[in-house]
Amino acid sequence: MALQNDSFLQACRGLRPSRTPVWMMRQAGRYLPEYREVRSKVSFTELCRTPELCAEVTLQPIDILGVDAAILFSDILVVLDALGVEVIFDPAPRIEAPVRTVADVDRIRWGDPREEVAYVYAAVRACKAALADRVPLIGFCGAPFTTLSYLVEGKGSRDFEHIKGLCFREPGVFHGLMERMTDLLIVYLKAQVEAGADALQIFDSWAGALAPDDYREHVLPHLHRLVVEVQGASVPVICFARGNANLLAEVATIPADVIGIDWSITLADAISVVGPERVVQGNLDPMVLLADAALIERKARAIVEAGKGARAHIFNLGHGISRHTDPGLARHLIEVVHSA
Amino acid sequence: MALQNDSFLQACRGLRPSRTPVWMMRQAGRYLPEYREVRSKVSFTELCRTPELCAEVTLQPIDILGVDAAILFSDILVVLDALGVEVIFDPAPRIEAPVRTVADVDRIRWGDPREEVAYVYAAVRACKAALADRVPLIGFCGAPFTTLSYLVEGKGSRDFEHIKGLCFREPGVFHGLMERMTDLLIVYLKAQVEAGADALQIFDSWAGALAPDDYREHVLPHLHRLVVEVQGASVPVICFARGNANLLAEVATIPADVIGIDWSITLADAISVVGPERVVQGNLDPMVLLADAALIERKARAIVEAGKGARAHIFNLGHGISRHTDPGLARHLIEVVHSA
Repeated sequence: MALQNDSFLQACRGLRPSRTPVWMMRQAGRYLPEYREVRSKVSFTELCRTPELCAEVTLQPIDILGVDAAILFSDILVVLDALGVEVIFDPAPRIEAPVRTVADVDRIRWGDPREEVAYVYAAVRACKAALADRVPLIGFCGAPFTTLSYLVEGKGSRDFEHIKGLCFREPGVFHGLMERMTDLLIVYLKAQVEAGADALQIFDSWAGALAPDDYREHVLPHLHRLVVEVQGASVPVICFARGNANLLAEVATIPADVIGIDWSITLADAISVVGPERVVQGNLDPMVLLADAALIERKARAIVEAGKGARAHIFNLGHGISRHTDPGLARHLIEVVHSA
Repeated sequence: MALQNDSFLQACRGLRPSRTPVWMMRQAGRYLPEYREVRSKVSFTELCRTPELCAEVTLQPIDILGVDAAILFSDILVVLDALGVEVIFDPAPRIEAPVRTVADVDRIRWGDPREEVAYVYAAVRACKAALADRVPLIGFCGAPFTTLSYLVEGKGSRDFEHIKGLCFREPGVFHGLMERMTDLLIVYLKAQVEAGADALQIFDSWAGALAPDDYREHVLPHLHRLVVEVQGASVPVICFARGNANLLAEVATIPADVIGIDWSITLADAISVVGPERVVQGNLDPMVLLADAALIERKARAIVEAGKGARAHIFNLGHGISRHTDPGLARHLIEVVHSA
């Protein structure tokens, strides 16, 4: 069935729809009273595991803000259910027994994500049904490095001592883990596409933990393989490595359909690094939404203008939207982008 | 009196001493048993306020590791004593009553750092006496943005919502604060030089909180003024803006004697951004010290080699040394750099 609004997918494919498509990372979230209403009744984990509620919150920003794509409400860490690893969200994610030693590594149970996280694909199907082809649905996962980092660090980190210690001291063990994590994520993303996802985004949220040489040597080959394998599922793939704009030249060697840009670099500079033949997504600093309509307009228009230097441009924030954002200003941003 | 080892100062002045000078950020710290021994008897705050103990721990890495410069043992936040703002270290710094509103801003008491933090200059004098001209002593401060960010956020932050909210919503108030903070830091650094500091480092540890356009507009002019004013005190100034290597081109517009480079960019790339006529300092990822001697040697030699592309190079880490570092491996690094 044809989508009523396929401007996002057109841009993913390198075309230039009549207006710049826009969605926002974490667009279904705590800044929306409608989301908080749903969350007041269930835990974050229950919400992720209840397809009807996932669909409800996934659709909220479509109705309220008028964005051009929906992104499945879920979390990059739910895939760890396939390993039997419990993630506690309070609200930041935390793992009780992180993988630190070679013995811990040997104990990992690599389950089949087709069976173990079936609720994710059920949520994809529920979202697709609820969307009724209004806009496309984006599925997603964390990149192998980011997912593995959570498994090893056990929580968010400033210094990434454990994962980097493992990578530097036991590169063989590290690569074995990256290999298996990549295998897992390939299956996980393909299953999301089979359930109906129209595009995929891979979040390497912690890419900036490694210096460029180390990222190139230890991470990039696995991310590359993940992207290429899931592109076989025939939906566009967005690759978003966050935290060090200086890695962009490395990331651009991956043939992802779209390269996500965080806010730490001007979009014009990012396009000159990745090349004008690539499709880019980004990159307004989400904290600009804490200001006023005038600043939002000025910054958003500058980004739309810069995006004209790329083959195609999907407007987004350069990081997830802040929970302190006024939904009215978020909506204003969407209107500004559409009318720019 | 002439220094016995002035290789660090030679490099600051653009000369190339016979061997690459090296020191390490946070070199007087928890990874050293000798430091932990001192700290077992006094709190961090007491240590900063006791000149004899400051001198003792400041000299430890000179004796134990053989580094080519000492850096005053202190913290970038002690200068907030001049504002009557108490900083609690447990161990991360925290401020009970951060500055959030315009009313909070009006209540700030801008004391004279010459009087209010006299213990810092006493510590500088004690360090100089204890060093007996073996190696130079580096004084330091946080950059205006980083210092102000702590005052406004009240603690370390991932998103810097409060300081960025202030900057975007109340740019006039923000600039007034940056102006006064810069004035304060000029006095503070000059007083350190009068007490005997041979060089100064300015840490813009949170530079990466802002997008390049915003950093250029809101932060750079103040940092520029600070550097130029304290250069009038006739000691070399190192400017180290951390967290977004993509800001380097901006930072390089400041005529600091030395530009500090964090580990998020290869040193060769950093030199090509700042220009081969500049002196650079950096930039080994401190987590490499958690590996083994072989990896440390390989990485350190590559950095010394890359440093030859600059006018002069001071070897350093690209961030503070980890407290989990084996002092034997830290010493090995110093030897590798000296023999490379």
